[in-house]
Amino acid sequence: MADLAATLSRADSNLDDSLDRLSQLVRIKSISTDPAYAPDCRKAAEWLVEALAEIGFSASVRDTIGHPMVVAHHDGPDGAPHVLFYGHYDVQPVDPIELWTSDPFEPAVTELTPGRKVITGRGTSDDKGQLMTFVEACRAYKETTGALPCRVSILFEGEEESGSVSLQPFLDENADELKADLALVCDTGMWDADTPSISVALRGLTGEEVTVKAADRDLHSGHYGGNAANPIHILSSILGAMHDENGRVTIPHFYDGVHETPQDIMAMWEELGPPKGFLEDIGLSIPSGERDRSILERCWTRPTAEVNGITGGYTGEGFKTVIPAQASAKVSFRLVGDQDPHAIRENFRKFVSDRIPADCSVEFAEHGTSGAIQLSYDAPELAKAGSALEEEWGKPTALLGMGGSIPIVGDFQSQLGMNSLLVGFALEDDRIHSPNEKYDLRSFHKGVRSWVRILDALAR
Amino acid sequence: MADLAATLSRADSNLDDSLDRLSQLVRIKSISTDPAYAPDCRKAAEWLVEALAEIGFSASVRDTIGHPMVVAHHDGPDGAPHVLFYGHYDVQPVDPIELWTSDPFEPAVTELTPGRKVITGRGTSDDKGQLMTFVEACRAYKETTGALPCRVSILFEGEEESGSVSLQPFLDENADELKADLALVCDTGMWDADTPSISVALRGLTGEEVTVKAADRDLHSGHYGGNAANPIHILSSILGAMHDENGRVTIPHFYDGVHETPQDIMAMWEELGPPKGFLEDIGLSIPSGERDRSILERCWTRPTAEVNGITGGYTGEGFKTVIPAQASAKVSFRLVGDQDPHAIRENFRKFVSDRIPADCSVEFAEHGTSGAIQLSYDAPELAKAGSALEEEWGKPTALLGMGGSIPIVGDFQSQLGMNSLLVGFALEDDRIHSPNEKYDLRSFHKGVRSWVRILDALAR
Repeated sequence: MADLAATLSRADSNLDDSLDRLSQLVRIKSISTDPAYAPDCRKAAEWLVEALAEIGFSASVRDTIGHPMVVAHHDGPDGAPHVLFYGHYDVQPVDPIELWTSDPFEPAVTELTPGRKVITGRGTSDDKGQLMTFVEACRAYKETTGALPCRVSILFEGEEESGSVSLQPFLDENADELKADLALVCDTGMWDADTPSISVALRGLTGEEVTVKAADRDLHSGHYGGNAANPIHILSSILGAMHDENGRVTIPHFYDGVHETPQDIMAMWEELGPPKGFLEDIGLSIPSGERDRSILERCWTRPTAEVNGITGGYTGEGFKTVIPAQASAKVSFRLVGDQDPHAIRENFRKFVSDRIPADCSVEFAEHGTSGAIQLSYDAPELAKAGSALEEEWGKPTALLGMGGSIPIVGDFQSQLGMNSLLVGFALEDDRIHSPNEKYDLRSFHKGVRSWVRILDALAR
Repeated sequence: MADLAATLSRADSNLDDSLDRLSQLVRIKSISTDPAYAPDCRKAAEWLVEALAEIGFSASVRDTIGHPMVVAHHDGPDGAPHVLFYGHYDVQPVDPIELWTSDPFEPAVTELTPGRKVITGRGTSDDKGQLMTFVEACRAYKETTGALPCRVSILFEGEEESGSVSLQPFLDENADELKADLALVCDTGMWDADTPSISVALRGLTGEEVTVKAADRDLHSGHYGGNAANPIHILSSILGAMHDENGRVTIPHFYDGVHETPQDIMAMWEELGPPKGFLEDIGLSIPSGERDRSILERCWTRPTAEVNGITGGYTGEGFKTVIPAQASAKVSFRLVGDQDPHAIRENFRKFVSDRIPADCSVEFAEHGTSGAIQLSYDAPELAKAGSALEEEWGKPTALLGMGGSIPIVGDFQSQLGMNSLLVGFALEDDRIHSPNEKYDLRSFHKGVRSWVRILDALAR
């Protein structure tokens, strides 16, 4: 405990220098989607290697088919857990540049509202500011105790904003080196500015494209209307039948593997309530989907079936009285718990095929599959990190879900057999991917302190 | 009867000359859609005026905002009915020209199969060959008796293949001159090569475009899936609910004004059976639509609701997990009997609006409205023309419907208060609008003779 208090104190006194280091990293224009910035991406990787080497990590830039990875290792006490920290040094493009009120690559500290200081610049929140909370926590330990409480490996990628094409092959090739007891991922946010949060449930995804075919050509609806099957009707009927009147998905076995959220978690979500303005901000007011579920359940721990696109027949200006030869839709399923993405795909295909008239046909195309991620609510690392965060923020840690997926978390699980602890300090108004991105100094400062506490807690 | 027999005989002996005159008309490249052929269109009109003047009509070319009309008049015996014959002298373009086996504007008589002679060339069937059957019938009368059995007016238009933009204003401006007791329209076909036919029921049309709007922007289906209304789901459900399991349209009051087809007509259609290969030729085998109706009823005297186009969300290559802000569909209704197109539109709008969630909205756009045409099965002119045709062809005349509309017939009814008798001699294999268009010499010859008989019958 003496070490912890001293390390926290060191993190406090380091703050100005920590911010200075973050600013150095933000100044590097590591935009991964634009090949013109490839040298900047490498520069950011090299800068990180140097920063990690400076605090005793054995760190290196690793070439890939895309932008390089940074891999670093630091030993820990015997018997202490081995954690792999993940972040990404690449950033989004800055367009539209004219909407920025200051240079996106010249970070500045300003006061947003009285007493609320922020650092502005591309990547300050996503993800340079966040990853630096962990690096600075390690620095505080090293400068205070000369050691880290856990064995720590670090993986920084440079392609998170551009499809992570190198990631899976890199994980495969370096599985032995990267496998740890637990991954720490700092690329998420807090429930609100005062509530520390861990994301424990991430929905998976199965994407399908379905094409219903009827006649072998487009038909005149005067000549054939009333006799020739209309694939738009068939497709509409099927998609319309995919939910019942209570918003439940009607595909047989769809809910196999869906688990009820524990009562204490439900109670926590009840207290959090739905995000402020969640539907109102997009011009809606009535939650759709499963009527008997809370909004947060529908967001995080209930599966969905959504049609993402539909097309058939004449869709240009004016009118054409055609009965089209085919109609198609793109359908995606957000998955939770232990739902089997492949079984979902097969059951959907059967559901559709069973409804195709005998003289019509249907074709399917597969578009991506990833299972849901569900950290056990009883996992000891969750309890430890939750308590550590509560001590720092003075408020119970919220255990959240995420409606979408973070691919790296699935990759860590499937390729390295490793759970992830998702802790982040970004706020809803950080404007990530948009002009005038910022990170609260409070997020940064208490973020560093949070990791100091979490590393301490995980080591116990 | 002496006059009739002599006139028929004259039509027979005229045949070679009649064909020669048709060939002269076919040689004129009166393609109405291509402005380059505007002089040819005028030339065709002038040729017709001359041909009609030659047999005693007072005929003139009438300028319009588009291609000219031909209007001609010939008196008839006191008390005889006044008929207005309609045809069009313009033709379709000839592309793809490389698929023609001979020059489309150099008509030739060839033997298609042993004993089956045809004249080939653009417009031989649609509609130059057909309109000339009537002109040559008039010529046979004039050359035999020096008179016509009815008072005859003629209207030839030159924009049938390009939207008939001048037609409605022209009918309005010349209503008094053109109004007759009955219109004769020769732009349709026979049931088969041996069965003379009159089309007595033409379906009308109401076109609607419906757009369902939910959120005020496209949403990420991970973040909002399960809570935000999906307009594709709403639209699919509505369109899917528009027919019941028996193929009946479920919109309230949709069948108001739909009449049962008389038993004798039903028996006639039962005997005709569905057109050979009607569904098989387009790769289908099971009639859709109203299960308890015959195929011909479904084609001709039952109304339909068809979605002609649908679009919403992401429809490009690959996948985008979006919940779109809106989805839209183009829907058309084929109408029969006394269905009110405006009531259909209103009832459809109510059907849709009633199914829109309270926080979503719907917009409609109107696309065309025309009522159905139904010649009374008891009309005396129908009996007269039917008997005349039966005498010529030696087979009872089939009374047919048409799945689509012929705008001129609606215009004659609504603008001039005049019924139309649709008699034509085209065959299914005439390849109208396609390369190698042809017209059977038998159609032409017996077509002329048919009009000789019909004019005689109508005068009685």
